[in-house]
Amino acid sequence: MPHIPLPADLPGIRGAMAFRPETARPLNQIVEILLTGPNSLSKGDRELIATYVSSRNCTHYCHSIHGAIAAAHLGGTAASEAIVKQVKTDFTQAEISPKLKALLNIAGKVQQDGKLVTSADVETARHEGATDIEIHDTVLIAAAFCMYNRYVDGLGTHQPDDEALYRDRGRRVARDGYVTVSEEYLANHAAAAHS
Amino acid sequence: MPHIPLPADLPGIRGAMAFRPETARPLNQIVEILLTGPNSLSKGDRELIATYVSSRNCTHYCHSIHGAIAAAHLGGTAASEAIVKQVKTDFTQAEISPKLKALLNIAGKVQQDGKLVTSADVETARHEGATDIEIHDTVLIAAAFCMYNRYVDGLGTHQPDDEALYRDRGRRVARDGYVTVSEEYLANHAAAAHS
Repeated sequence: MPHIPLPADLPGIRGAMAFRPETARPLNQIVEILLTGPNSLSKGDRELIATYVSSRNCTHYCHSIHGAIAAAHLGGTAASEAIVKQVKTDFTQAEISPKLKALLNIAGKVQQDGKLVTSADVETARHEGATDIEIHDTVLIAAAFCMYNRYVDGLGTHQPDDEALYRDRGRRVARDGYVTVSEEYLANHAAAAHS
Repeated sequence: MPHIPLPADLPGIRGAMAFRPETARPLNQIVEILLTGPNSLSKGDRELIATYVSSRNCTHYCHSIHGAIAAAHLGGTAASEAIVKQVKTDFTQAEISPKLKALLNIAGKVQQDGKLVTSADVETARHEGATDIEIHDTVLIAAAFCMYNRYVDGLGTHQPDDEALYRDRGRRVARDGYVTVSEEYLANHAAAAHS
């Protein structure tokens, strides 16, 4: 049961966003820019960073939906789902680039405490080809998911177990982006609240 | 030394925001809405929540500047600075309302892990007069500062020790708000980068 009355038909962060659309808009803009905007990191790689951080925070809704979005960007096959699962379990053994492994190492430290990131961690990422903006975005994606995860967990939102639900929605978000998909349910909920 | 080349004249989150103005704007909108927007919680109380979370994350820049903004909203006196200090040290002994203490208890749990918030924590806050939106905003302020703190620390930003600097800037932000103050240095930095 959520700690405050959230719309029952909207799981995870969607219920929280419908409850407070004023903050939902900038919250969606941040993921839209960081995870879908123009970037030398692929959308799949950026979603894997979000998935990994959410998995370390044990936030079921977030690591399931971002894992599904990552898998969709990576081809939507069983093999891409296996990569996502491996990143959640032990990314060092995953079939991903050495650069992404170095960035996931930084993201994992930010998830614990930003002060744990060392110059050596950053040098390793640079050695594998990471640019300044990729390092910046990795830190901010990791930091932002420490917010989204706490928002979803701290309100006691409903976080379904059904994998098919995340897979279907993951494909839609991968195709249409965060702002488009969220404006739809924010608008529907506002209409329902006033009808 | 910051891990990436940030403008040397802008400490803390300001350097990070000038480096990536695309994400700076929604990041500023979130604090503008949560900490300065219309709300039944006073601006001082909301800044104390931000200060407390930043203090628990040991992010010097954030707990210093938000502590200074809180003190400005609370009257800008030595007594208001003492309240801020007491909230950082042990809020249970601070001269603040029982409602704010119940909300700070929730914020402290969100800072660790949102899943630690219990129905009893929320009931206690309600008993002291907290509304659903105040509970929502407390959770989101705490979650958001877990992001800002990690962003500031994870990039190794410069975090000055000079208390007078935070006090002066705290007064300005309390008076003018986050978006106005940040647009100024974002614009100045963009102009400098192109000159």
